[in-house]
Amino acid sequence: MEVGEGVSAATPTEEMNGAGNLMDFLDEPFPDVGTYEDFHTIDWLREKSRDTDRHRKITSKSKESMWELIKSLLDAWSGWVVMLLIGLLSGTLAGVIDLAVDWMTDLKEGVCLSAFWYSHEQCCWTSNETTFDDRDKCPQWQKWAELMTGHAEGAGAYVLNYFLYVLWALLFSFLAVSLVRVFAPYACGSGIPEIKTILSGFIIRGYLGKWTLLIKTVTLVLAVSSGLSLGKEGPLVHVACCCGNLFCSLFSKYSKNEGKRREVLSAAAAAGVSVAFGAPIGGVLFSLEEVSYYFPLKTLWRSFFAALVAAFTLRSINPFGNSRLVLFYVEYHTPWYMTTQLGKYPVLEVIAVTGITAVLAYPNPYTRRSTSELISELFNDCGALESSQLCDYINNPNMSRPVDDIPDRPAGPGVYNALWQLALALIFKIVITIFTFGMKIPSGLFIPSMAVGAIAGRIVGIAVEQMAYHHHDWIIFKNWCRPGADCVTPGLYAMVGAAACLGGVTRMTVSLVVIMFELTGGLEYIVPLMAAAVTSKWVADAFGKEGIYESHIQLNGYPYLDVRDEFTHRTLATDVMRPRRNDPPLAVLTQDSTTVEDVETLIKDTDYNGFPVVVSRESERLIGFVQRRDLTLAIKNARQKQDGVVSSSVVYFTEDAPQLLASNPQPLKLRRILNLSPFTVTDHTPMETVVDIFRKLGLRQCLVTRSGRLLGIITKKDVLRHMAQMMNQDPESIMFN
Amino acid sequence: MEVGEGVSAATPTEEMNGAGNLMDFLDEPFPDVGTYEDFHTIDWLREKSRDTDRHRKITSKSKESMWELIKSLLDAWSGWVVMLLIGLLSGTLAGVIDLAVDWMTDLKEGVCLSAFWYSHEQCCWTSNETTFDDRDKCPQWQKWAELMTGHAEGAGAYVLNYFLYVLWALLFSFLAVSLVRVFAPYACGSGIPEIKTILSGFIIRGYLGKWTLLIKTVTLVLAVSSGLSLGKEGPLVHVACCCGNLFCSLFSKYSKNEGKRREVLSAAAAAGVSVAFGAPIGGVLFSLEEVSYYFPLKTLWRSFFAALVAAFTLRSINPFGNSRLVLFYVEYHTPWYMTTQLGKYPVLEVIAVTGITAVLAYPNPYTRRSTSELISELFNDCGALESSQLCDYINNPNMSRPVDDIPDRPAGPGVYNALWQLALALIFKIVITIFTFGMKIPSGLFIPSMAVGAIAGRIVGIAVEQMAYHHHDWIIFKNWCRPGADCVTPGLYAMVGAAACLGGVTRMTVSLVVIMFELTGGLEYIVPLMAAAVTSKWVADAFGKEGIYESHIQLNGYPYLDVRDEFTHRTLATDVMRPRRNDPPLAVLTQDSTTVEDVETLIKDTDYNGFPVVVSRESERLIGFVQRRDLTLAIKNARQKQDGVVSSSVVYFTEDAPQLLASNPQPLKLRRILNLSPFTVTDHTPMETVVDIFRKLGLRQCLVTRSGRLLGIITKKDVLRHMAQMMNQDPESIMFN
Repeated sequence: MEVGEGVSAATPTEEMNGAGNLMDFLDEPFPDVGTYEDFHTIDWLREKSRDTDRHRKITSKSKESMWELIKSLLDAWSGWVVMLLIGLLSGTLAGVIDLAVDWMTDLKEGVCLSAFWYSHEQCCWTSNETTFDDRDKCPQWQKWAELMTGHAEGAGAYVLNYFLYVLWALLFSFLAVSLVRVFAPYACGSGIPEIKTILSGFIIRGYLGKWTLLIKTVTLVLAVSSGLSLGKEGPLVHVACCCGNLFCSLFSKYSKNEGKRREVLSAAAAAGVSVAFGAPIGGVLFSLEEVSYYFPLKTLWRSFFAALVAAFTLRSINPFGNSRLVLFYVEYHTPWYMTTQLGKYPVLEVIAVTGITAVLAYPNPYTRRSTSELISELFNDCGALESSQLCDYINNPNMSRPVDDIPDRPAGPGVYNALWQLALALIFKIVITIFTFGMKIPSGLFIPSMAVGAIAGRIVGIAVEQMAYHHHDWIIFKNWCRPGADCVTPGLYAMVGAAACLGGVTRMTVSLVVIMFELTGGLEYIVPLMAAAVTSKWVADAFGKEGIYESHIQLNGYPYLDVRDEFTHRTLATDVMRPRRNDPPLAVLTQDSTTVEDVETLIKDTDYNGFPVVVSRESERLIGFVQRRDLTLAIKNARQKQDGVVSSSVVYFTEDAPQLLASNPQPLKLRRILNLSPFTVTDHTPMETVVDIFRKLGLRQCLVTRSGRLLGIITKKDVLRHMAQMMNQDPESIMFN
Repeated sequence: MEVGEGVSAATPTEEMNGAGNLMDFLDEPFPDVGTYEDFHTIDWLREKSRDTDRHRKITSKSKESMWELIKSLLDAWSGWVVMLLIGLLSGTLAGVIDLAVDWMTDLKEGVCLSAFWYSHEQCCWTSNETTFDDRDKCPQWQKWAELMTGHAEGAGAYVLNYFLYVLWALLFSFLAVSLVRVFAPYACGSGIPEIKTILSGFIIRGYLGKWTLLIKTVTLVLAVSSGLSLGKEGPLVHVACCCGNLFCSLFSKYSKNEGKRREVLSAAAAAGVSVAFGAPIGGVLFSLEEVSYYFPLKTLWRSFFAALVAAFTLRSINPFGNSRLVLFYVEYHTPWYMTTQLGKYPVLEVIAVTGITAVLAYPNPYTRRSTSELISELFNDCGALESSQLCDYINNPNMSRPVDDIPDRPAGPGVYNALWQLALALIFKIVITIFTFGMKIPSGLFIPSMAVGAIAGRIVGIAVEQMAYHHHDWIIFKNWCRPGADCVTPGLYAMVGAAACLGGVTRMTVSLVVIMFELTGGLEYIVPLMAAAVTSKWVADAFGKEGIYESHIQLNGYPYLDVRDEFTHRTLATDVMRPRRNDPPLAVLTQDSTTVEDVETLIKDTDYNGFPVVVSRESERLIGFVQRRDLTLAIKNARQKQDGVVSSSVVYFTEDAPQLLASNPQPLKLRRILNLSPFTVTDHTPMETVVDIFRKLGLRQCLVTRSGRLLGIITKKDVLRHMAQMMNQDPESIMFN
C-alpha cells in the first residue's frame, strides 16, 4: 500500500526537485497544520468544508455589530475585488510587455535618433513625412549601418546590419536564459501544463510566486524580442496566474484555502488569454475548456469580469493599439516538445538555437518580421490599395468595378516570388519550432502554430484561386465561379488554416473559434472556422487523444486526472485497492488500543499520507481516517505540553476515554484530528465509478469496504497507475469515444 | 422514511397528472426492467455503468469479424450522426416556421394578389416598382379593406382593417390553444424549465414526443402570427430537443440509456438556440450555462457540431435571410409567470389576452409591427439615409461631413413624437407580457425582455444625447463631448438596455454577451455589453438568486438540484437521514433470512423505491441495495416460472444458498438484482458534502452508516427538502455568495 504520492516518481525536471534554493521559497510561509506539502494533492472536500466553516462564522458574527456586518460584506465582495486587481495588473503588465517588445524588436535593426526609447513606428509616427509609403523610412529612424558608417545601402551595410541583428538576438536570449536559470527556474516554458496541474489540485510551491512573476515578465520581453520562434500567450497566462496568486495573499479567505485559491487562479487564466489576444470571451472559454478543472458557474462569472477588466486596461494603456493592431501584436512562438542532447546545457542550447534562428530568418522577408505581422498580412485580402508583394496581380486595364469587389485576376511575378518565399518560410518555421521546443526561457505556443497554418492556408488559397481563374470550366469551379467574379479569397484560406493548425495542436474547439473571431472580427466566417475546428479535432484525435498540454503533463509525470479520458474497463475497486494479495496487511490504527509508541513506530516505518482508524483489529469496522501530518504534530505537541503523556500512553479516538487500570499512564485523546467522514466505496464498485468519484469530488484517497469491514485503500496515484495500465493493455478501447 | 419521490407533492399542472390519454403515450414503449417510471429520477451512475458494459461488449466483439468491426465503428460514430440529423431537422423546422410566420403575420393585414402564399415582402420583392420607398406599397399587395371595398384610405378602411386584424389574431390564437389542449398539453409554454429538469435526470414521459414536436411546431407558428406578446426562442429549444429525442430512438445506444439520451438532448438545446437567434456559439454557451446539468467536454464538441449544422441549414433554407434579417426574424415573446383566475379557463384566457393585445397594439406603430423589427429599428443608428421617425433630427444646412459620421443634432418633432409612442409601448409591453405569462400556448421569453430593455435604453439614449447637445458645458459631458461631434449613440443605449434586461430576467452572462454580438455583429461593443451583463446580474441577484427558469421550476415543484445554490449550513447527514427519531425503524431486507412472503408484505405496506440489504438485523452490516421495481418483477417471475418457489421460500442475496433443513421449500436467489456498490456516507458527513455528492454524481439515494453499521437513508427529495428548510430559516446566508 502506498498512500503517499510524494516527489518520488512523479517529479518533473531537475530544477524542480532541487528547488530548495529558489528565491520564491523565502516568501512562502512555513507549512502549518491543515496545509499541504510540496508536490502533494489537496483534498477538495476538506478545503470546501473549511471554507464553509469560515463563512458560517463570519455570517453568525455579522449579526453582533455594525463593524462585523461591514467586515462580512467586505469578505463577500473580496472575490470581485481580487478579480478587479487581477484584471488591472495583468492588463498593465501585458501593455508594458507589448511596448517593450515593440521597442526591443526594432532595436535589433536600428535606433530612433529623436528619442532612443521610441520604436520604429513611434519614431516615424511623429515624423513630418506625411505620405503613407515614406512613413516607414523617416530620417529620424536609422539602421545601425547607416548610423555607424553613414551608408544606408550596399553590401557592406547589409552585412553589418545582419551581424548586429544576430548579435542583439544572442544578447537578448543570453540575458533571458541566465535570468531564468539564476533567479526563477519555474519561469521557463509556457506554464500552461503546470497551471492545469495546479488547478487540478496539485501543489507546486513557488510556481506562482512573486519572483517567478517578475522574472517571467522581464525574460518574456527578452525572449520574444530575440526573435526566437516562440510567443507570449502561454507565458501571459502564467503571468496572470502569478498576479492572481499575489492578490490571493491579501485575503485570508483565499490565501489560507487551497480550493478557493484555485477558483481565483481559473479566473486569472481567463484574464491572461484575454490580454494575450485581446479576446475576453475567448479567454473565459479557454479557461473553461482547456485549463480549468473545477469550474463552477460562480467562477465563470468572475472570470468574465476579470477578463473584461484586463482587456479594458490593456486597451487603455497601449496608445498605438487600434483594436486590430493590439489583437495581432504578438511575436514568435513555439509548439511541440522534444528532448535533444543539448537539453543538458540550457544556456548553450538557447544561444545555439537563437543564432541559427537569427541567421536563417534575416534573409527571408517573411521570417525576418514578427510572426504576428506575418499572420496579419496572410489573413488580409488584396484590396486595391494593398502594396504587399502577395497582392501583385495583373490588373485588367478595363476594370471598372468598385475598389472593394475585385474579381479574380492572374497572379503577377510578385505573387510567384512570394509563394517560393512562403514555402521556404513554412519549412523553416516547422523545423525551428520543433527545436525551439521546451527551452529554458518563457515560450508560448499559439502563434507559431497559427503561422504554420496560415502560411500553408495562403499557399493553398492562391493555388485554388489561380486554378479557378485559369480553369473556370472545370467541374468543381463551374457552378460557383463565373469568370470575372471574385470567387476565391486566399486570405480566408489562411485564416481557416491557422485555426485548423492551432486546433490540431491544442484540441480546442469552441474557445478556438471564439478567439479566432475576436482576433479577426470575422463573425461572418464562423461557419468555415467551426468546420475547420471540428475537422482538425477529428483528424488529430485519430492519431491520439491528447493535446499538447496533456502530452506535456504526461511527459512531466504530474498526477493529473484528465476529465476527458473515459474509463471504460470492467475492473472493480477490489482489483485496484492496496494491499494487493501478497502485501503486508493494511496499516491501521484502532480507536482505543494503540499506544503512543505504536503510533510513532508506524509513522517511522511507513511513508503513507494517512491511516484508517477501526473499532478493533478483529471487527475491522471503519470509524475514520487520520492524516499522517496531523498525527505527527498532535503527538509532538502532546509530548511537549501535556503532562503524563509518555510512550505507553494509550491513544484514543472515541468520545470517551477507554476504561483503563489506574496504573496506566494518562491516555491521549485525538478525536479532534480524526476525519469522521472518510470516503468509502464497496469492493464491488466498478472502477469506472471510482474514477468518476475521484474526478468529480477531487479526492486524495478512498477506503474500500465489504459488508462494513475495511478491506483496503485506493489513492489517486493508484487510480492513475491503473488507468495507464489498462490503456496500455487495450489502446483501441479509448479510440472511438 | 420515504424513498419514493413519486407524483405526490411534486407534480406540476393538471394536464401533466392526467396525462394518461396523451397521444404521445401511445408511442412510448411499456416500461421495462431497468427503465424508470414517470416523474422519477434516473440513476446516473447506473446508466453510465450500463453504457460502459454495452461499449465493452461491442469492443470485444469487434475483434471477431469484419462485420462486427464495422458495426462497432458505426456505433462509435452514431453520436455524430445523431448530431447531424438534429442539426438538419431543427434547422429545417426553424426555416419553415420563419417562412410561415412571415406569411401569416402579413395575412392579418392583407393578401398578395399574384400569389396568395407570398408574404408582403416576397410579394413586393418581385414587383416592378424599383424605387426603394415604393417597394412597400406595390400594387400586388392589397390590404383587406382595399380588396373588399376598393377604398385603401379613409376612416372606414381603417376600421375594417383594424377589425380584420383583430379577427385573424383571435382565429390564430384560438386554433393554437385548441390544438395544444386536445393533442399535446405539453406543447404549451417555453419548455425550457422542463427541459432543464429533464436534463437534470427527471423523467417526464411524452414531454419530448413526436406529437409534442408536431403540435408545438404548428401552434408556435399560430401563436407568433397572432401577434401575442410571446416569442419563439424557448419553444424552438423545445422543438430541437424533441428532434433530438426522435433521433435517439434510431440508435439503441441512446434510446435505451437515459444518461446517454441526456447528452444528446443537451446538444439539441444548443442547436435550438443556434437556430432561434442564428447564434451557434451563443447556443452552445446557453446550453452550457443555462440549460444543461451534466455537460462533459464531449458534449461540448457535439453541441458545437449540431449548432453549426443547424445554423447552416437554416441559412440555406431561408431565401430572404441576409444574415442580419434572419438574426432578428423573431416575434412577440413572454416573460414572467403569474397566475390569474382566468388560468382555469385556458381557451378563454388566450382569446381574451389576444383580443386585448390586438386591440391595443394596432394603433401604436411601435407595437403593431413585430417585436423583432422594433428591436432592429431601436438598435440602428441614424445614418444619413435613415427614414425612420426616430431619426427626424434637425440638420445643420452647413454640414459637410461624410455620411457615416453624423454629429449630434437637436431632435425634430418626429423624435419627440416617437418618444411618446415609445413610452406608451414600454408600459404596454411590460403590462401585457405579465398577463401573457404562462398561457397554454407555445411562448418564448427572450425577445419581449429584450424589447422592454431596448425601448427603455433608446429613450434614455435620446435623452442623454439631447442633454449632451444642449448642455455640452455640463461637467459630465465637458471632457468627452465637444460641440459638433458625434458623442452619444442612442442605438448603443438600446442594445445595452436589451442585454441588461434579458440578463436580469435569465441571469445569463457569458452566453448573453455572445448571443448579443452574434445577433448584432457588434464585436466592438463587447465592453459595454459585458459591463451591462455583469451589472444586471448583480442588481437582480440582490433581489433574489433565481432566474426565470429556476423560479418556474420551483413553482412547478420539480425535484431539481440547482448546481448554483451553495449549501453553507453546518448540518450533518445524521440530521437529514430517515428514519427520524420517532419513526418506525428502517425497512431493510436480510441477506439470507427473509421469506418471499415477508418481501411481498414489505412491498405492499410501503411505497419506497428500494430497500437496503444487511447481513442480519443484529449486525446491521450493509451488503447492498435492491430496487423495489426489480424485486417485484423478480418475485413475480420466479413464482410463475420457477418450480418450488412459494411464500415460505427464503430469499437470499449471498453467493451460496443458506444452509436450510431439507423440509424447507426451495430458496430464491436474488443476487443478480442486488446493487453491490450502493453509495454510503457516514453519519458525521457534513450535509454540504452530501449535497455535493448528490449533485455531481447524480444520485437518487445514499445510505448512511456509522462504524460499518447501517443507520438510515437520504434521498434526493430529503436533500431538497432540507435545503429549502435551511434556506427559510436563514435566508441571509445565501445572499453573499
